[in-house]
Amino acid sequence: MRVLVVFAHPVESSFNATLHRTVVDALTRAGHQVDDLDLYAEGFNPCLTREERLVYHDTTRNLDTVAPYVERLRAAEAVVFVFPVWSYGVPAILKGWMDRLLKPGVGFTLNADGTLTRILTSIRAVAAVTSYGQPWWMVRLAIGDLPRAQIMGYFRRFCPNCRTRRYHALYHMNRATPERCRRFLARVEQSMLRFG
Amino acid sequence: MRVLVVFAHPVESSFNATLHRTVVDALTRAGHQVDDLDLYAEGFNPCLTREERLVYHDTTRNLDTVAPYVERLRAAEAVVFVFPVWSYGVPAILKGWMDRLLKPGVGFTLNADGTLTRILTSIRAVAAVTSYGQPWWMVRLAIGDLPRAQIMGYFRRFCPNCRTRRYHALYHMNRATPERCRRFLARVEQSMLRFG
Repeated sequence: MRVLVVFAHPVESSFNATLHRTVVDALTRAGHQVDDLDLYAEGFNPCLTREERLVYHDTTRNLDTVAPYVERLRAAEAVVFVFPVWSYGVPAILKGWMDRLLKPGVGFTLNADGTLTRILTSIRAVAAVTSYGQPWWMVRLAIGDLPRAQIMGYFRRFCPNCRTRRYHALYHMNRATPERCRRFLARVEQSMLRFG
Repeated sequence: MRVLVVFAHPVESSFNATLHRTVVDALTRAGHQVDDLDLYAEGFNPCLTREERLVYHDTTRNLDTVAPYVERLRAAEAVVFVFPVWSYGVPAILKGWMDRLLKPGVGFTLNADGTLTRILTSIRAVAAVTSYGQPWWMVRLAIGDLPRAQIMGYFRRFCPNCRTRRYHALYHMNRATPERCRRFLARVEQSMLRFG
């Protein structure tokens, strides 16, 4: 499969960077063709611009400023997101990738009767690999799982042929022992070796 | 009161821009001192940088790159957010304002026993004014109300003395009649005239 990996952390020595390297390495070893999109390294601008907003519904012009990113998304048969949870959500740079890319002509078409048809038809699998500062029960019961909703509720809905979904989360990262981090890393590696 | 208005839309002719002008105007008429932070107009960079992440926990250095924005937040006795809902959440530029500002020394202090003390003590009121593409029942029952959780669940928690909270949402904006928009605008104006 052609797998687009979307990574959103700025520090090369972070646990997230280790997760990212593990994901790319395992997918490659499993024989997939990986397109590694490191949003920070590529200097991605997450702000939907004034011009983009003005032509948002005009599918003849609304891709001009994000064409290379749209091409990479359209070429993908699977997408794997690797990111930390910051301020209860996905990092701004990843939120902006969604704001700017998932528009009419890419994520969906607007029909004459006002309904949507979702058109990321090539994508057959979506996964996320992430770490939360808080424990899982706080995320589930008190806070609300915003990053999961953003990836699995929002992004995945544009992929009508998605058959595989995996959400790997390390909770309570603020207190995680090295052993728990190692186990999580091993779990992610095994999952990516069998991804598809 | 000193009210910080945080606005996140790039188009001056948008309904959100009208909401923004109405909010600033009503607060000013009500006698408040308004600090109008237009994130797009000020070219705010929403990406937490590598350097910021490396000194995140070092309260002697972690404010260097965002000092003017921290000062404006600390000076506020109330905060009003005005934004559209994009991709189920707050726009990336506003998400990044939270990612970069609400760190140790600004939003909270980390105690020796690992607990947090929330320290935006000057803030007595928090409000949001926003518009959703989807109808309210879809947001509440199917999608999950991510923007509300981000503002009222996340940001407001840093304000232990917050006594007033208001969340004004226009749902199903994609199908709103001019009359419904007018009524919402009037409701927002009245709310801001009596804010405090």
